[in-house]
Amino acid sequence: MGMVTCDITVSVDGCAAGPGQSAEEPLGRGGESLHRWQFEGGGEHTAEVAGILGHGAYIMGRNMFGPPRVGGFDEPWRGWWGEEPPYRAPVFVLTHTAQEPVEMAGGTTFHFVTGGPQAAFELARDAAGERTFAIAGGASTVDQFLAAGLIDELRLHIAPIVLGGGERLFAASGPVVLTPVSARATPLVTHVTYRLG
Amino acid sequence: MGMVTCDITVSVDGCAAGPGQSAEEPLGRGGESLHRWQFEGGGEHTAEVAGILGHGAYIMGRNMFGPPRVGGFDEPWRGWWGEEPPYRAPVFVLTHTAQEPVEMAGGTTFHFVTGGPQAAFELARDAAGERTFAIAGGASTVDQFLAAGLIDELRLHIAPIVLGGGERLFAASGPVVLTPVSARATPLVTHVTYRLG
Repeated sequence: MGMVTCDITVSVDGCAAGPGQSAEEPLGRGGESLHRWQFEGGGEHTAEVAGILGHGAYIMGRNMFGPPRVGGFDEPWRGWWGEEPPYRAPVFVLTHTAQEPVEMAGGTTFHFVTGGPQAAFELARDAAGERTFAIAGGASTVDQFLAAGLIDELRLHIAPIVLGGGERLFAASGPVVLTPVSARATPLVTHVTYRLG
Repeated sequence: MGMVTCDITVSVDGCAAGPGQSAEEPLGRGGESLHRWQFEGGGEHTAEVAGILGHGAYIMGRNMFGPPRVGGFDEPWRGWWGEEPPYRAPVFVLTHTAQEPVEMAGGTTFHFVTGGPQAAFELARDAAGERTFAIAGGASTVDQFLAAGLIDELRLHIAPIVLGGGERLFAASGPVVLTPVSARATPLVTHVTYRLG
């Protein structure tokens, strides 16, 4: 089985989204600025951006796939990433509402898993084979996998802003012990890699 | 006027102390482990440990100086640092209860400031002259100076643990924009320096 990684961008105060998340503002107030480094950082961040993708499978939470909504997704909802999402691999979406897989251009298929994180983990592991697979977010999904001890490597991308509230990483992970592997500062973000377990 | 610095050690979830702080456990549950890097890190951290000290003056909060207590300090309380504290300079303690300065061996004198953060800032600035002075903590004191825009350089020492709660840095700072200057990972801690303002 390949390594299980997790890349997540957080503010200096540890939030993966700002306060007041909604369908109109899915990253909350100020949350868009967390991800500036991926789009404005130029080649300096190529390795880190590349590391977020390129995995054999992905697991993501319900709210990372789509906006908050009662009772499943509307028929046309196909994720935030357009017709050709960058994952190019199976993506297992944790949800409480069963629905048919959504096959996108370029190799991405969204599968909807109602059996919980462990079921999603096994599906992603089997889909990835020897390749790494990634817990793609959001924060509460990452917390569940941290709490279960199922992440091998956590790569925090710390944007240089204090949001002052929002969706906090580690809010539900319980105590965790990590081993720092590397750290790198650039004007738009600080990359810190930890090993777990 | 010299630069205003702040060194503070936090957990990966951004806490400068664990939950359940008390006179017996002033750093809260798990909080002692935040500071392992300073004592067990050996020469690898010499520069960072040195950077915490060596300033012309310091400002610290009431709870950093002594344990929680109603109505000022008991006569014998002379700080957590023994008879010869490492500051070797004036230390201005923010408190609501006036008391006489406490002069220690080695050049440290604790002054008690009841006029609030701005008054302490002016006293520390004047005492430091051309030298840097430091906001020494704890988290809520740092937050006050961040909110007032009075810190030039923030040096986070991120211990590789998730405490899962406690005294959170930035809880009362409001939104802040920082510029990453440097980052360095060692097995015991990740050092990240930011410029403000």
